[in-house]
Amino acid sequence: MTQALGRSARKRQTILSAGRDLFFSHGYQGTSVDQIAASAEVSKQTVYKHFGDKHELLLAIVTNALESTVAAILERIGALADTADLEADVTALAADYLRAVLQEPVVQLRRLVVGEANRVPELAQLYYNQAPARTLAAFAECFSALHDRGLLRVPEPAMAAEHFAFLVIGRCIDQALFCGGPDVLASVDVDSHVRAGVRVFLAAYQAHAG
Amino acid sequence: MTQALGRSARKRQTILSAGRDLFFSHGYQGTSVDQIAASAEVSKQTVYKHFGDKHELLLAIVTNALESTVAAILERIGALADTADLEADVTALAADYLRAVLQEPVVQLRRLVVGEANRVPELAQLYYNQAPARTLAAFAECFSALHDRGLLRVPEPAMAAEHFAFLVIGRCIDQALFCGGPDVLASVDVDSHVRAGVRVFLAAYQAHAG
Repeated sequence: MTQALGRSARKRQTILSAGRDLFFSHGYQGTSVDQIAASAEVSKQTVYKHFGDKHELLLAIVTNALESTVAAILERIGALADTADLEADVTALAADYLRAVLQEPVVQLRRLVVGEANRVPELAQLYYNQAPARTLAAFAECFSALHDRGLLRVPEPAMAAEHFAFLVIGRCIDQALFCGGPDVLASVDVDSHVRAGVRVFLAAYQAHAG
Repeated sequence: MTQALGRSARKRQTILSAGRDLFFSHGYQGTSVDQIAASAEVSKQTVYKHFGDKHELLLAIVTNALESTVAAILERIGALADTADLEADVTALAADYLRAVLQEPVVQLRRLVVGEANRVPELAQLYYNQAPARTLAAFAECFSALHDRGLLRVPEPAMAAEHFAFLVIGRCIDQALFCGGPDVLASVDVDSHVRAGVRVFLAAYQAHAG
């Protein structure tokens, strides 16, 4: 993959990666374009040529990071609609979902975007639309399909999606923003945590025969 | 109250208030002690005399803000243990809880602390322990009492507390970090949102006679 990239595209990736690491550790306001250029071993002019300014670079870093993390979970959610064993498959999906959102780069990205939400509101809105909102919409679509198959009883798919997502990840993702994803993951028994959340979800939403 | 404060205590409050407003709008890293002193109409030396440095001022601002917001909700949760009408009272509490966490100063405080979590981890840990963790512990204690009264069946009170809290506030508080508390509050029908969350909670946890 890297070999196939031209020299300019490789420089772009190097700048994105250097900018991301510096923004994560020193914050957006605490990082200068000079530092990013030095870390990427390019000139300041090269950074400006690729990204215009620091603000554009921040938008590119967040967009780039979201592309790789959101697509995988959306695909998993879509596949659940065809399940032959609802409880087993929804539990497995919930465990993968919880582990995915507690990954260190995901938590760091959230911290960065939330910390700048007052100064760069369009970035925070972009993040919310591209990540949490799309994930919730995918759950709603999946639960609606499972309703049509007679496996769930979900009169309000968007509400059920919200309930499922936050039963599974709610406390953990909230705590991770403050205490860090790896620390939270290490303190949670993912299997029993996820089973408890799924049990509550199914108690409210599973369709009962007869 | 203000009259009873001495001149020094009033200056301290003025500095706290000026620092909070500047940190909220420009960020911790984007605010200098010079700006805080100018806004509070005191000398830079007075800021240092009261708070040591900018870092100590940040800790004092967060501690001060938490004192006033957390105590009220903890008291409300404690009172629920004596309910004579569980569904009505838990629904009313849930609505107040949701409105409380979506208040602009609460969301701003979360953004500030989360944004600095990498640089000031002890502040993030303090915030988590003093606000979310204490609230969850209060819900756990209350649900345990309601279990003993035979109104709920809650074998794991801490897990039930987490489920209740994030069924009620989960999506909204997450979205508010990105999109702002007032915008989220304006887009939600609090009563129907809260009723839906309580319905799921009770489907899983209400004790049934017989």
